[in-house]
Amino acid sequence: MKTLVIGGCGFIGSHVVDRLLVHGHSVKVFDRQMERFRPPLDGVEYVIGDFGDQMAVIDALAGVDAVMHLASTTFPSTADLNPALDVQGNLVGTLSLLDAMDRLGVARILFLSSGGTVYGRPDQVPIPETHPLRPINSYGIVKVAIEHYLEMYRRTRKISPVAIRASNPYGPRQGHTGVQGVISTFLTRLRRGETLEIWGDGSVVRDYVHVAELADLCARAIATDRTGAYNAGSGQGTSLREVVEILETVTGRAIAPIYKPGRAIDVRESVLDIARAQADFGWRSTIPLVEGVAATYDWMCRE
Amino acid sequence: MKTLVIGGCGFIGSHVVDRLLVHGHSVKVFDRQMERFRPPLDGVEYVIGDFGDQMAVIDALAGVDAVMHLASTTFPSTADLNPALDVQGNLVGTLSLLDAMDRLGVARILFLSSGGTVYGRPDQVPIPETHPLRPINSYGIVKVAIEHYLEMYRRTRKISPVAIRASNPYGPRQGHTGVQGVISTFLTRLRRGETLEIWGDGSVVRDYVHVAELADLCARAIATDRTGAYNAGSGQGTSLREVVEILETVTGRAIAPIYKPGRAIDVRESVLDIARAQADFGWRSTIPLVEGVAATYDWMCRE
Repeated sequence: MKTLVIGGCGFIGSHVVDRLLVHGHSVKVFDRQMERFRPPLDGVEYVIGDFGDQMAVIDALAGVDAVMHLASTTFPSTADLNPALDVQGNLVGTLSLLDAMDRLGVARILFLSSGGTVYGRPDQVPIPETHPLRPINSYGIVKVAIEHYLEMYRRTRKISPVAIRASNPYGPRQGHTGVQGVISTFLTRLRRGETLEIWGDGSVVRDYVHVAELADLCARAIATDRTGAYNAGSGQGTSLREVVEILETVTGRAIAPIYKPGRAIDVRESVLDIARAQADFGWRSTIPLVEGVAATYDWMCRE
Repeated sequence: MKTLVIGGCGFIGSHVVDRLLVHGHSVKVFDRQMERFRPPLDGVEYVIGDFGDQMAVIDALAGVDAVMHLASTTFPSTADLNPALDVQGNLVGTLSLLDAMDRLGVARILFLSSGGTVYGRPDQVPIPETHPLRPINSYGIVKVAIEHYLEMYRRTRKISPVAIRASNPYGPRQGHTGVQGVISTFLTRLRRGETLEIWGDGSVVRDYVHVAELADLCARAIATDRTGAYNAGSGQGTSLREVVEILETVTGRAIAPIYKPGRAIDVRESVLDIARAQADFGWRSTIPLVEGVAATYDWMCRE
């Protein structure tokens, strides 16, 4: 099976490529730039191009059996600054991709959605996939619109889509710039001797999943003909205060974060119900957060 | 109160303008072209321009207290043919409008959403506003995304939005081209002596609301500071077979429609729960369908 991984040089994408290779896929990667932390992988075909360039995307689809769409032109934390750009880059870009796949007869697509933003403020935790989609930021609004279009294309065109609603992935090769992932950002600041800043009182609860486990789920899902949406988290909630405690354990240092006023945009608690992925793909997250963070810290120290 | 009506020369828009004038608003209309069935109205300022032209929209916002956004660059029945164009014209256009309003300090906006498409296949009828939004066509997907952005702008910017989820409006000045409204389309075909075509067995149930009543609700809603979404229908379901019976009564002719295979895209039953609009605006639909259709037919015969 020849699989095109759009966004395959990014944080999650690079782990997905690793898993696909283990599963015996022939892998082609389409991304804006090469991987940041590793040299090119043996046996992987790299195509450098822009997701918004429809001709480049069509070109990359040649000879492909399935597509993993992991590209995002925005981050959850920055998309609100320019929603029109978010819509243009991600939504219109994905519609172009789907049209091209339909025309070229490539049916299977896995789309990386966002379990942390599509539900908005949840009525219940853990959140099942059947929970209403009420996103409150641009990142989530665009992900929801894309999921709706995937379902429309499933019904009206020859597209077989599966959406993976990832919670908060963390692990090696996550960006350090402060816009992507609190664990990576905090570890980086600690290594630099900088103070940690927490918006609110640290009681905000999130669901952190190790990126290698998320990638494993993606590799399992693309190889089936299952459609619809699957939550991908640990199923466990961890508060920011608990994250700080884990960081103290892992780094062996006492940490005194600065607490700043909470943001109206923050959802208080987001934990995903992962029963569906377990039932349909035999998948679940098993790496304890403290172990995953320790491994990430080790990787960072070796970098 | 000076109110800008974007799409004010269209079918619904022209009726909204009528109601605003009755309510004593100063009215400015922004549309692609002048009204099709009436000369320009006394005391209304018309600005001809394209909704996608951000500078023209900003220009039209000058001196305005509130905006009625009734423009659509697509029809429900045709948006699926080119979803990217739908997103570009309607979603990106609306984001531009909201950004311009925010910069110019115009807070109040009424957005005409779609009660017939935002819910998808309903779990219950009549459908309350709290029903999950699961649109199954591009028209509905874009309306939902816009509603999500309206709520985001309410929370994070100085925008006060209200969305009116209209069911199937009918009445004088509806287009005759066959893409907009089954009642208008059928009446037109009957006048021309053409056969009616029905997709499926005619059991599909819809909620038809007279456009003047819909316009009345819009005029009431814009004058309040209520936010969120309001269904706007008759609250009554009518099957296509019953519509045909009403057309027989109104025209005094026997009608033998041609039944064609049903479309996978069709929702079987869509009827709106209108209790919220009644409670908050003292509004409800009172015109019986047979009377509304008779009046529409009279208007058509005089045209």
